[in-house]
Amino acid sequence: MVKVGIVGGTGYTGVELLRLLASHEQASVAVITSRAETGRRVDDLFPNLRGLYDLSYTTPDREQLATCDIVFFATPHNVAMHMVPDMLSAGCRVIDLSADYRLRDARLWSSWYGESHASDELLTEAVYGLPELNREQIADARLVACPGCYPTSIILGFMPLLASGLVDPQHLIASSASGVSGAGRIAKVDNLLSEVSDSFKPYGVSGHRHLPEIEQGLSDVAGTPVVVTFVPHLLPMVRGIHSTLFARFGSSSPAQNLQALYEHFFEEAPFVDVLPPGTLPQTRAVRGANRCQLAIAVPQGRDTVVVMAAIDNLVKGASGQAIQVMNIMLGLDESVGLGQVGLLP
Amino acid sequence: MVKVGIVGGTGYTGVELLRLLASHEQASVAVITSRAETGRRVDDLFPNLRGLYDLSYTTPDREQLATCDIVFFATPHNVAMHMVPDMLSAGCRVIDLSADYRLRDARLWSSWYGESHASDELLTEAVYGLPELNREQIADARLVACPGCYPTSIILGFMPLLASGLVDPQHLIASSASGVSGAGRIAKVDNLLSEVSDSFKPYGVSGHRHLPEIEQGLSDVAGTPVVVTFVPHLLPMVRGIHSTLFARFGSSSPAQNLQALYEHFFEEAPFVDVLPPGTLPQTRAVRGANRCQLAIAVPQGRDTVVVMAAIDNLVKGASGQAIQVMNIMLGLDESVGLGQVGLLP
Amino acid sequence: MVKVGIVGGTGYTGVELLRLLASHEQASVAVITSRAETGRRVDDLFPNLRGLYDLSYTTPDREQLATCDIVFFATPHNVAMHMVPDMLSAGCRVIDLSADYRLRDARLWSSWYGESHASDELLTEAVYGLPELNREQIADARLVACPGCYPTSIILGFMPLLASGLVDPQHLIASSASGVSGAGRIAKVDNLLSEVSDSFKPYGVSGHRHLPEIEQGLSDVAGTPVVVTFVPHLLPMVRGIHSTLFARFGSSSPAQNLQALYEHFFEEAPFVDVLPPGTLPQTRAVRGANRCQLAIAVPQGRDTVVVMAAIDNLVKGASGQAIQVMNIMLGLDESVGLGQVGLLP
Amino acid sequence: MVKVGIVGGTGYTGVELLRLLASHEQASVAVITSRAETGRRVDDLFPNLRGLYDLSYTTPDREQLATCDIVFFATPHNVAMHMVPDMLSAGCRVIDLSADYRLRDARLWSSWYGESHASDELLTEAVYGLPELNREQIADARLVACPGCYPTSIILGFMPLLASGLVDPQHLIASSASGVSGAGRIAKVDNLLSEVSDSFKPYGVSGHRHLPEIEQGLSDVAGTPVVVTFVPHLLPMVRGIHSTLFARFGSSSPAQNLQALYEHFFEEAPFVDVLPPGTLPQTRAVRGANRCQLAIAVPQGRDTVVVMAAIDNLVKGASGQAIQVMNIMLGLDESVGLGQVGLLP
Repeated sequence: MVKVGIVGGTGYTGVELLRLLASHEQASVAVITSRAETGRRVDDLFPNLRGLYDLSYTTPDREQLATCDIVFFATPHNVAMHMVPDMLSAGCRVIDLSADYRLRDARLWSSWYGESHASDELLTEAVYGLPELNREQIADARLVACPGCYPTSIILGFMPLLASGLVDPQHLIASSASGVSGAGRIAKVDNLLSEVSDSFKPYGVSGHRHLPEIEQGLSDVAGTPVVVTFVPHLLPMVRGIHSTLFARFGSSSPAQNLQALYEHFFEEAPFVDVLPPGTLPQTRAVRGANRCQLAIAVPQGRDTVVVMAAIDNLVKGASGQAIQVMNIMLGLDESVGLGQVGLLP
Repeated sequence: MVKVGIVGGTGYTGVELLRLLASHEQASVAVITSRAETGRRVDDLFPNLRGLYDLSYTTPDREQLATCDIVFFATPHNVAMHMVPDMLSAGCRVIDLSADYRLRDARLWSSWYGESHASDELLTEAVYGLPELNREQIADARLVACPGCYPTSIILGFMPLLASGLVDPQHLIASSASGVSGAGRIAKVDNLLSEVSDSFKPYGVSGHRHLPEIEQGLSDVAGTPVVVTFVPHLLPMVRGIHSTLFARFGSSSPAQNLQALYEHFFEEAPFVDVLPPGTLPQTRAVRGANRCQLAIAVPQGRDTVVVMAAIDNLVKGASGQAIQVMNIMLGLDESVGLGQVGLLP
Repeated sequence: MVKVGIVGGTGYTGVELLRLLASHEQASVAVITSRAETGRRVDDLFPNLRGLYDLSYTTPDREQLATCDIVFFATPHNVAMHMVPDMLSAGCRVIDLSADYRLRDARLWSSWYGESHASDELLTEAVYGLPELNREQIADARLVACPGCYPTSIILGFMPLLASGLVDPQHLIASSASGVSGAGRIAKVDNLLSEVSDSFKPYGVSGHRHLPEIEQGLSDVAGTPVVVTFVPHLLPMVRGIHSTLFARFGSSSPAQNLQALYEHFFEEAPFVDVLPPGTLPQTRAVRGANRCQLAIAVPQGRDTVVVMAAIDNLVKGASGQAIQVMNIMLGLDESVGLGQVGLLP
Repeated sequence: MVKVGIVGGTGYTGVELLRLLASHEQASVAVITSRAETGRRVDDLFPNLRGLYDLSYTTPDREQLATCDIVFFATPHNVAMHMVPDMLSAGCRVIDLSADYRLRDARLWSSWYGESHASDELLTEAVYGLPELNREQIADARLVACPGCYPTSIILGFMPLLASGLVDPQHLIASSASGVSGAGRIAKVDNLLSEVSDSFKPYGVSGHRHLPEIEQGLSDVAGTPVVVTFVPHLLPMVRGIHSTLFARFGSSSPAQNLQALYEHFFEEAPFVDVLPPGTLPQTRAVRGANRCQLAIAVPQGRDTVVVMAAIDNLVKGASGQAIQVMNIMLGLDESVGLGQVGLLP
């Protein structure tokens, strides 16, 4: 049984790790930390977990965490970068769900996060934890930086087009929309039900922190710098991200069958599901499931291709992907413990 | 033109006063205060008001407020009770939307609010501002305490039954449900969309602060002490309160036609609408409107009567009712500026 | 491997059976019928099931269904009563999720459903499939009538009080609220998102078809006729039922500790969870899970007790309970395949 | 008093015309038709209108409608085109909210609507009723075709850019999202709350009927053929459309101040509100109001401009715009009866 620790277990990615790990036969949560809730039972805070865990929050403690094989960081950014060096030197392997190790360039990181990085020596060692991109590097990694939720949907959606060089990499457009759980379990007027229910709005148009991560990931795929115009929007619902992606074909419209291209590209990826022609993604089909559903269209047969991608931001966009990464790191089948079916209706 | 001041203009009852007063031909908002947002334009915080007000928040100031004919307090409890004596002595008339003056008994108030009352000498002068109960006293009042949202729906619903002595006043039951806007525009994890959307729950079962107010109001109607079991619930939506009320007939089932009783009882009340037999209330029919819709049923012809009442908690349950009160105080037609139609769908 | 057939697989209880059975190790769906969708793949209609079933709808056929060990009816009322006699004579055991066999009294059934019963000779054989009430009879049954969603929450909530004779059985009150999925996957203007979103309303006050079922079940528990005033309401959300139950104590307030009474009463019931004192149910904690969460309160220490119960109407209120019943019928552990965790947030 | 007739008064644009006209001082609804609801009071179907109209549905009748000065068609497409010639010859002026007269090219219309047009001789006479584009032609028109909801938001958003020739007109992208009320008050499984709540999905990617209308309108503005990639999405809410628009600058990035360009372009348009820099549109700010809020951004100062536009699909996207058109046709102030304030929260 793999011994798991979770740092920062009171947010939505923390409770989602617990929900998913409850049915993982080869991993067991030994430690879960929260400074604010020390001593409180996890099922007191999250009553959906009653009967599943006999576990209380503890104050983060190096010695205690060092007994774990795998330590997940389900913290806001700026926490992991201070603790990870210690965890690694204690022999733990680390899966960071936060943004601390996603960018390889420390200066770029600092310019977007407004502070200097506390352990930038690890930025190049950290593996970007998108299994469909880096499955092999993940297997051997000590430190994996799990992708953000928007980047997961956008990189998976554009990958086949960029890898095959079919579209102009300098003018990609991503119009994405996320449920409010992406904003975290944090007391803010902006995310009250009375503020965001029954409404839809863009945000972060002038610059969202996921932009450099998206461009880094897509540039890795394309082998050339990629430029994306990224507009995120807030949906009046809890879970789900949908990205609508636009790209223009190169000199001429492609002879290639895009449906076949996508199906072939992802045929080894158990959690990427290319929908049959004529079917479009909807977030509820993947709610609670570790799955990305994709569709491709070329409206009116013109020169612009549209890719649509749906994930659950807390599962394939965060905690499910983190467990998928853990499975790969441990040499397990990638799908262990990830059989949850989308909750529809 | 009546000069209006609003103390505490950044909450939902504040912005709702502004929305409604924008179409009031005989009142004009001269002052709106907020310590936290001093200097900020109201339409910057609430973009639905763009083009309607050229107004910015100011720090509450006695001299400035004293220039107003009517001062609304749209503050949390514990604010008005410190400022109202001053306003009254300056010659303003005050309409308090908070809970500070709703209970006549200072000890009862203290036991529910956990502190002593700062101006308890005004508790007996303050008129409970339910026009359908106290229209005449409101006309002459210096200080009106507007009812809470739940009490408005429950008192209106039970009034005809209690006034006519048809039901047992010692065993009333009120099962109510409110949209989340009733919890205010306050940063709390509990009211995040991700916490309360797609879910339904009771709260405050052991004792909600509206209980003594409900029992005081109903006792006034009945002329005898009334006992209510009150269970509020939180709805996954923004606006609307629905109360489902249960009472048992006295010795025998009534000969009286309850539908006629209700229609007659409220025939002079422009904002209470007794629905025709067979039609039941729904909160969306009164969304944004200063209206209470009521229906009565005696399921299976047994000995228990069910009354159903729907209001918009921010309008007839708060700011609309406050303007109705203002109209009465000023000798205007009760309906001036309150012609907004329910937003359906 | 137990061979399962599902009659009527295009409604919400049908797709929910499929979602839950996807992780049941000892049962496999061999047949699923739908006249309207014959030939269509189930995962074409319900894309959350992609990769889990290689199954298409067929027209109901006696021979084909007769090969199944267990046949679920996930049909509207009035279908099962025509087909079940045939299924039983073919040697299948039947679990009916519809209302056809819930009432033992054929005349009562006819008066509520407006037609005569097509196989009333089976009404007394059919076991009412609430495991917490009839676990032993279910084990040996050929035909089980699964409870309605409201009755499940209301009977479980009142059971300990009625079994112990603490409350007046003639004046029970149930104020319940359901998500819209309870109304089925049927084209009706009344259940459009634009009609029911952002709104709350009572319905069926003069008589809901679940009333006689509730009273029959509670009378079985009490050993005396029980009278309930039942008001259902429609919630602006998909899944979840919450019932708020009111009862009056007999001559005096009970010496007994109600919390202990409830915990003891349900200690052998794996899917009934009595919450610790001070914690109240919320539907999201049981969303997608086969679980009923209960809490008890005596507001202000008066003579009225309030019980609150939350279930997912499609799981413990329908398809999950049906699988629980199947497990009992097959002599399996009651919990097999029912380990889904509530989806929170 | 202008006498108004409404053909097709049971859909959402019909009830919205009634809601808005209730506060129009110079127009009065004399006739409202519905074959299905003939004889039923409008406030029986729409209880938000109780007390406002003493009006029942009638079967459409030429003589009766001919007594009206203005006849609104709030029907599905394919109804108006059969009745309008008659109405015009009877001397009525017609405002059609349906799609029947929006395209000038009869062959294009037929190819998108799958039938031949019944009165194509009127297609060139009909004025496209976007006041910000055709204010003068509307004033004199006998027949006005009100724009679709998506086209309203997209044309208003792109207008200043295209009129000034700043962007490539051959590669415009519109990613739009609509509340479900846009799908009408029609019994369809697809629009049940249980199907579309808590979910987000694209639809009509291969070709939505608003596409030719958008391209026709934008080509009029640009004076050159315009090509748009248009992807609509369905939001889990009732009202509101938001369009996120992308265009690429011509040879170089513009010297021009886009904020000033937009403010200047719309300075005479009372219902188009260019938000101050840094503020982004949100649909709730315009819910129930006849207003379009716009914002412009150039992310990262690159070569792609993003315009964001929010309207209420039933108001500025349908019935409010139709009343604005009526005011212009009648020589009234454009804003008469359109003072409703956005319902926020």
